[in-house]
Amino acid sequence: MLKIAIVGATGIVGQQAIVSLLGHPWFEISKLVASERSANKKYIDALRDANGSIRWWCPEELPENIAGMVVEEASTFDPTSVDVIFSTMDAGPAKELEPKYAKTTPVISTASAFRYETDTPILVGGVNMEHAELLAIQQKNRGWKGFISPKSNCTIAGLVVSLKPILDNFGVKQVVATSLQAMSGAGRTPGLSAMDMTENVVPYISGEEPKVESEPQKILGRLAGDKIVSAPFGITATCTRVPVLDGHLVCAFVQTEKPCTPEDVKRVMVEYGKDFAELHLPSSPPHLIDVTDDPFRPQPRMDRDKGGGMTVTVGRIRKDPILENGIKYVCLAHNTKLGAAKGALQTAEYLVKNFLKWV
Amino acid sequence: MLKIAIVGATGIVGQQAIVSLLGHPWFEISKLVASERSANKKYIDALRDANGSIRWWCPEELPENIAGMVVEEASTFDPTSVDVIFSTMDAGPAKELEPKYAKTTPVISTASAFRYETDTPILVGGVNMEHAELLAIQQKNRGWKGFISPKSNCTIAGLVVSLKPILDNFGVKQVVATSLQAMSGAGRTPGLSAMDMTENVVPYISGEEPKVESEPQKILGRLAGDKIVSAPFGITATCTRVPVLDGHLVCAFVQTEKPCTPEDVKRVMVEYGKDFAELHLPSSPPHLIDVTDDPFRPQPRMDRDKGGGMTVTVGRIRKDPILENGIKYVCLAHNTKLGAAKGALQTAEYLVKNFLKWV
Amino acid sequence: MLKIAIVGATGIVGQQAIVSLLGHPWFEISKLVASERSANKKYIDALRDANGSIRWWCPEELPENIAGMVVEEASTFDPTSVDVIFSTMDAGPAKELEPKYAKTTPVISTASAFRYETDTPILVGGVNMEHAELLAIQQKNRGWKGFISPKSNCTIAGLVVSLKPILDNFGVKQVVATSLQAMSGAGRTPGLSAMDMTENVVPYISGEEPKVESEPQKILGRLAGDKIVSAPFGITATCTRVPVLDGHLVCAFVQTEKPCTPEDVKRVMVEYGKDFAELHLPSSPPHLIDVTDDPFRPQPRMDRDKGGGMTVTVGRIRKDPILENGIKYVCLAHNTKLGAAKGALQTAEYLVKNFLKWV
Amino acid sequence: MLKIAIVGATGIVGQQAIVSLLGHPWFEISKLVASERSANKKYIDALRDANGSIRWWCPEELPENIAGMVVEEASTFDPTSVDVIFSTMDAGPAKELEPKYAKTTPVISTASAFRYETDTPILVGGVNMEHAELLAIQQKNRGWKGFISPKSNCTIAGLVVSLKPILDNFGVKQVVATSLQAMSGAGRTPGLSAMDMTENVVPYISGEEPKVESEPQKILGRLAGDKIVSAPFGITATCTRVPVLDGHLVCAFVQTEKPCTPEDVKRVMVEYGKDFAELHLPSSPPHLIDVTDDPFRPQPRMDRDKGGGMTVTVGRIRKDPILENGIKYVCLAHNTKLGAAKGALQTAEYLVKNFLKWV
Repeated sequence: MLKIAIVGATGIVGQQAIVSLLGHPWFEISKLVASERSANKKYIDALRDANGSIRWWCPEELPENIAGMVVEEASTFDPTSVDVIFSTMDAGPAKELEPKYAKTTPVISTASAFRYETDTPILVGGVNMEHAELLAIQQKNRGWKGFISPKSNCTIAGLVVSLKPILDNFGVKQVVATSLQAMSGAGRTPGLSAMDMTENVVPYISGEEPKVESEPQKILGRLAGDKIVSAPFGITATCTRVPVLDGHLVCAFVQTEKPCTPEDVKRVMVEYGKDFAELHLPSSPPHLIDVTDDPFRPQPRMDRDKGGGMTVTVGRIRKDPILENGIKYVCLAHNTKLGAAKGALQTAEYLVKNFLKWV
Repeated sequence: MLKIAIVGATGIVGQQAIVSLLGHPWFEISKLVASERSANKKYIDALRDANGSIRWWCPEELPENIAGMVVEEASTFDPTSVDVIFSTMDAGPAKELEPKYAKTTPVISTASAFRYETDTPILVGGVNMEHAELLAIQQKNRGWKGFISPKSNCTIAGLVVSLKPILDNFGVKQVVATSLQAMSGAGRTPGLSAMDMTENVVPYISGEEPKVESEPQKILGRLAGDKIVSAPFGITATCTRVPVLDGHLVCAFVQTEKPCTPEDVKRVMVEYGKDFAELHLPSSPPHLIDVTDDPFRPQPRMDRDKGGGMTVTVGRIRKDPILENGIKYVCLAHNTKLGAAKGALQTAEYLVKNFLKWV
Repeated sequence: MLKIAIVGATGIVGQQAIVSLLGHPWFEISKLVASERSANKKYIDALRDANGSIRWWCPEELPENIAGMVVEEASTFDPTSVDVIFSTMDAGPAKELEPKYAKTTPVISTASAFRYETDTPILVGGVNMEHAELLAIQQKNRGWKGFISPKSNCTIAGLVVSLKPILDNFGVKQVVATSLQAMSGAGRTPGLSAMDMTENVVPYISGEEPKVESEPQKILGRLAGDKIVSAPFGITATCTRVPVLDGHLVCAFVQTEKPCTPEDVKRVMVEYGKDFAELHLPSSPPHLIDVTDDPFRPQPRMDRDKGGGMTVTVGRIRKDPILENGIKYVCLAHNTKLGAAKGALQTAEYLVKNFLKWV
Repeated sequence: MLKIAIVGATGIVGQQAIVSLLGHPWFEISKLVASERSANKKYIDALRDANGSIRWWCPEELPENIAGMVVEEASTFDPTSVDVIFSTMDAGPAKELEPKYAKTTPVISTASAFRYETDTPILVGGVNMEHAELLAIQQKNRGWKGFISPKSNCTIAGLVVSLKPILDNFGVKQVVATSLQAMSGAGRTPGLSAMDMTENVVPYISGEEPKVESEPQKILGRLAGDKIVSAPFGITATCTRVPVLDGHLVCAFVQTEKPCTPEDVKRVMVEYGKDFAELHLPSSPPHLIDVTDDPFRPQPRMDRDKGGGMTVTVGRIRKDPILENGIKYVCLAHNTKLGAAKGALQTAEYLVKNFLKWV
């Protein structure tokens, strides 16, 4: 078993990382690491708020052995005490601490701090595994024995999976996207206000649209020597927040290079990802994409947990009435599973098996 | 005072019509008309469901004098007993009964039955009042003393108001729109299921997208002789249902003919509609459009009631990063006020004052 | 493996019965039975609504082998073709068909049709298993080889579990209860209206309070010869509907015969049900009651799935400031698991193992 | 016109105070006062959060003249610059500053700081106006020219109104109450978390139950010489938070001294408050209590705004099946209108007219 540390373990993404790792066949949770405020407390005590309530937000029960682990402090944590580090810190501390850890130890990160570095890939399971080679260049450039492998923004996690088979088969020229994003994406302490989000929509998410408009091209780009050449298409997005707990829905209007029918798109989506599924990574679902013919689907609450929260559901694929080579569809991904901790874990599984060849 | 009959008076739109007309300076509610099931009952008794609950859904209280009116039956109703008919029937009975009424009496309708007839305008307050002249042609064509004037689909009510000043100043080439629509648009008996709509989004509304993709071009078209020449731009739409009570939000990506900046768009929207406001119609708001600089607005619950539910709120006007001459923005309109009964009433006010010249 | 038929298989409770039985160690789903409308269709086709949407409401995926089963018609269904019948019909058809089935075959029922018969127990797992002996009297009385064993009303499922250890240890004199009930209790077609339940509470549930005020005394009664002597305490209830999907919360004010402290009550609840747990029935949770010290719990969304939806969570146990021998607490049970299909299945497990001795 | 200052003007209750006072016939908003953080800013700028959004939470639009007023600082505010002070501060600053203001100026307060002082009444409109005489004793005791008149806890605002006619006619022996409270009661910055309150109930509100269990007896008590003798009945309560924006619902089980029927209770409630209505205070509704026969009412969203948010709606009055002289009912009051700013304003109106005799 590989020893894994979760850094940022008390936050919502850290909690989801814990849940993702329960009963994992390759990894055992060896250390829980967090900020000074939580350090040296039992994990369950570190979760208590001012009222004494335990702020454990996952529907899964917190196992007693995890509850009793003593939390270590992130700034003094020894990265060599584990095989792999799962970092769920915020961007600020991630920027400072992840490079320290990466000197000796592989770091899988849900933070955005290193996403846009030239020598750093944004790996998305089944989409761009060949970009993992860039981590060797990162190691060489920076003199690290470990590496930093960040996950993508949660909103595009489903979009890039749905775009990949379109890009491979028909080319992508342009994407217009409106997202209807779940509230869990805004975190938990304090997160969004109930008075703002009840029976309401907020049509803006600070800092989100620039990420949605730029990350997919890198993820869907081509590794050429020591860098990634971005896929040559444009994306424009409006990102909104809706009163849904989990599951980001994206309404996409895609123009392809070559003409294609909705049936063509459905077919390439259904066939997509078989080779990746054959790697049999523990967190991978049997199908990367599930295409539904029910026009009322995908729905966040009904479809987000498909494939353990790792399957993207695509529906309403139809010919666009006005856009040249235009296809419209709706896609849904679980923002705190595929789009966060469990998606990062899937990447970790790929890397320890196929890049590090440790399992 | 002009005598007005509300046909379909027990339904949700009929109830909103009643509320819109309370204390009206020109109209008095003279008759309440509904289907056979309600006929010859006191209005308040016609509202009772099987449990004895009174299904009056408006937040405004039902006045006692209205509650006590005896409902007449639509199929035998005498249209000459009133000056104006406000029809809120469903499309089926509207198709059959509205022409009978129109033989003698002006009919303002919230139904879609006649929207797509060549000799019938779809009047939207402040947008295309010159199309009212087509009603004279309708009267002549059909040998009617009255006419049928239908309102637009509720989803586009706000969109066309926001597009009009853009069209007039910069031309419109293409619109990509995603709507986040409120639940009241699906009616009340039974309407949407709470188990479907709680903490969820449904990405499809049966029959909605074709209306959104075709009505605006007629509304924004040009009256040429005895018909309307549609505005020459295309719209593509994805319509979704969100857990909001009232207020349809549309995320629009608009390409204009001439280049323009977000500041230009804001300016023409702010200036828009002054001449219409000067008509001082009782149901018109002081501003047709309110442009907000707060990036988190418009929000359905916070902005839908602006201007008595008759003002469209536009926010997040910004340059599109990839579309040629592209502008992105979000607009909100109250679907059961501007988009339904009160919007239809505003049209009725225009027609009795400026077309019929009765006030 | 025992062959089980689910009658009423297309309804929400029937669907939950299917999910409860997936991978069951003792039962295999042998037949799916429903009304004439669904008969002779593949199960998945019987779930389609007028729009073609598949109305499968469980978060768990519908297995392909179940989806492909051909539905039989309830009125002509041969009860001898299975070992056990799981009836999830409405009260009307249950009243007519369950006795026909029971002539030859044990019927576990979620309907209320037979709950109040003198020779019929209302079995609640771990609470009154000794009442199962009444089924032998029912068989004798009615000349049945099978029997009808109905589950309790869903609202009291958690309340009676929480009252049982209090009754056994301190006696119960009187209960004042206010329930905050989830929307799934009202069914799905059409169920509650989203326009009624959004951002609202409905303080009445038709027919519910009389059940809450009378069933617990029978369940908590004593089997004396050929009948049950009800427990001699009174209950008064107000039942309300809140915008929650699943999980009925009951705020209870209990007066005991003997004085007891909150710590006493906590202790007897924590210790309660160990002998039942030792039966190791497949659907039983490790703990019948989980007592939480967090004053903000139990919460429906956070606690309803504890123990696979079969554990009752009790919190806020405190001394009543005014009632003699008064204790106040809040209890929560999953209304569609413990309170419906899975609770009925647990009873079926008990009966086949300990009453019929088939496993 | 009397000059009024609103202290705590930027908070949610302060905003509601502003709205309550717009167009008031006796008071003009003369000063807006808040903490140091807001002092010397224009009011609209003091409302801006870190994102630049204007945190004005009332559905009513903020008038331009109010938006432009410069906020003064509470600690240095000169109370003699106005006739009346409307304090909506939190309990901490209220405890310190209200006595300073009261030396010279009447203070109407929504804070709890002085509620439990022996020489301070808790005035509730129409319920205990005779307690106003205690303010003269407060003035004398403390050497103040002004006074402090605090409003009641918001949860009991409706309960005490409903109990008063029962007490007067039949006597009250005991009350068991469960409240289902709206989220606005928890304030706005940050208020409750959307992730906690979506599709959920929280069965605890810190500090609430002791207030509910003790304030009504003082409010419904009898002024005897220089103090109030509490009404001699007990209340026990469980207070829960439900996903509703506004409107606290209380499910009450009341035992009376004398027997009475539900019809008796209805009658005394309907007749109640006529003398108070005849004072024609600007904020008073025509009826203090509205009794509904619809068993599905009162509902928070449908009934809270009745009488401008100042009418209490009572429904489901019925005989209790087990409690001696027991009556059950459900009552609803608007927690941020009757239960907060507008209720306090109604008290202010009474005091300036009938105690101070200034109008």
